[in-house]
Parts: sequence; structure tokens; C-alpha cells
Amino acid sequence: MRLTAQTDYALRMLMHLAVNSDRWVTISEIAERFDISKNHLMKIAQTLVARKVVQSLRGRGGGLRLARPANAIHVGEIARPLEAASVLVECFPGGANECLITPSCKLKGVLREAQAAFYDVLDQYSIADLVGGNQGLEALLAEVAA
Amino acid sequence: MRLTAQTDYALRMLMHLAVNSDRWVTISEIAERFDISKNHLMKIAQTLVARKVVQSLRGRGGGLRLARPANAIHVGEIARPLEAASVLVECFPGGANECLITPSCKLKGVLREAQAAFYDVLDQYSIADLVGGNQGLEALLAEVAA
Repeated sequence: MRLTAQTDYALRMLMHLAVNSDRWVTISEIAERFDISKNHLMKIAQTLVARKVVQSLRGRGGGLRLARPANAIHVGEIARPLEAASVLVECFPGGANECLITPSCKLKGVLREAQAAFYDVLDQYSIADLVGGNQGLEALLAEVAA
Repeated sequence: MRLTAQTDYALRMLMHLAVNSDRWVTISEIAERFDISKNHLMKIAQTLVARKVVQSLRGRGGGLRLARPANAIHVGEIARPLEAASVLVECFPGGANECLITPSCKLKGVLREAQAAFYDVLDQYSIADLVGGNQGLEALLAEVAA
């Protein structure tokens, strides 16, 4: 059971933006801090901008910041669409379904119920829950003095 | 969010054995029925035999059958160990953890809670729940007349 790197990186990006909510943060900074490819992060940022989770400002002094307060961005709403292309098993929508028993398989429904329970938990937590009162995280992600 | 093929195939194997619980079923039959590699199924069968979920009888007329009634084999107990090597995100035990914020990250705990909710649902269903009263499945998996 594995989440995509997209979801993992998107959540790290949002935590970083939440800790540094007083300024515009560049993608280069996030890429360096987490040792993640800048290209990969740019694609994720585009997705988050399109979903109105993140704002971007072009040019010198620009960068990314949260488009909403961190307590109004929930982990589930980030993970669900980013995981949409990653099918739990091949018979799920979007999968290369070649399973003989699909028409009569009750396992599909059980797995769907389990997946819903997984996202229900993620819906209960906001980005603010992850960073609030977390001084260790703040120290790790704060702006590095020039 | 993706399960491993191992879990998918193990559950298909167990449903097939449950539908055909009156006889020993060969791995070749399961491989043909689901169009899955025989080698892959042999490894899964070995794991299930070691876990005392499946019995095997060598030689002519032999094969596999459930080691317990289908209502005493739950989906969660099959999925959990087969998914153990597939880490949800890289900071989970067994992952190639290179994430800077691991020491102070609260997301880990949230993901662990969500994963537990996923398996809790799977623990509520047995193989018997998947095949019982399912005539469509029985028709698809019944022995083919010689």
C-alpha cells in the first residue's frame, strides 16, 4: 500500500508554506530543503495553484504561498485528486482491468469501503494541525538567514 | 494509493479455493483462470502455506486448498503482511527515508491512523463474505468439465 510521490511532496510543500506563511517561498527553496527535483515540484505547484490551494507570484521576489489559511486546507482534499491516477487494484476505474471475476466480485466493494475509511481520516486533519505548535518543524523549515 | 499485485492475486487465489473447497486445486488452474504468471502464484502460495491459510498436497491429484473454513480467513490478515514491504510513504519503517522533517513530522501519525482505518475495514470481512451466496462468482470459478 503505497501513496504516490506527488502526494508526499505536495504535503511537504504545503507544510513548508504554512511554516513560512509570512513570505513568498520559491520552488528552488523547497527543492533544496527537501532534496526533491525542481521539475517535479513545479508540476505539483501548478496542480495546487489550479486547485486554488496555493497562490503564485511570478518574477523577482515572487514564489508560492498558501491561497487559504492552513486550517482550511485538509489533507484528504490534497491526497484524493493526486492519488486518482493510482488505482488501488486493477479493476478500479482507470486500471487495466483484466480480471475475470470483476462482474461478480465483492472484494471491489470491500476495498472501496476501506479506501473511503482511509480518506475519511485524512479529511479530519488540516495543514494547520500538522504545523501548529510544532516548534521542531518550524526550526527545520524556517528561513535560513542570508 | 495502490496495493501490491501480491495481495490482489492472493485474494483471488483464496476466493477460487473457497468456491472450489470440495477438491484440491492446482496452481496451473488458478494461473490459467486469472491469466496470472504461475511463478508469481507459486511464491504467493508458499507464503500462504507458511501462514497456515492454505494447505498443499504434492504430486498427482494434489494441489492447494484452504487450511481453515473461509469464514475464519479475513481479508485484513491476508493483506497486512503481503503489503508490509510496500511503504505508504518513504518515512515508514522499511522505506528509504531521506525526508528532512521526519523527526518533527506530524503527518506520519495521521497517515498511520488512516492506514489503520483501511485495515480495520478489511478485518471485518472474511473470504466467506466474498464468495457466500455469490452465484455469479461460483459460475465464473467453478471446475470446468473435462
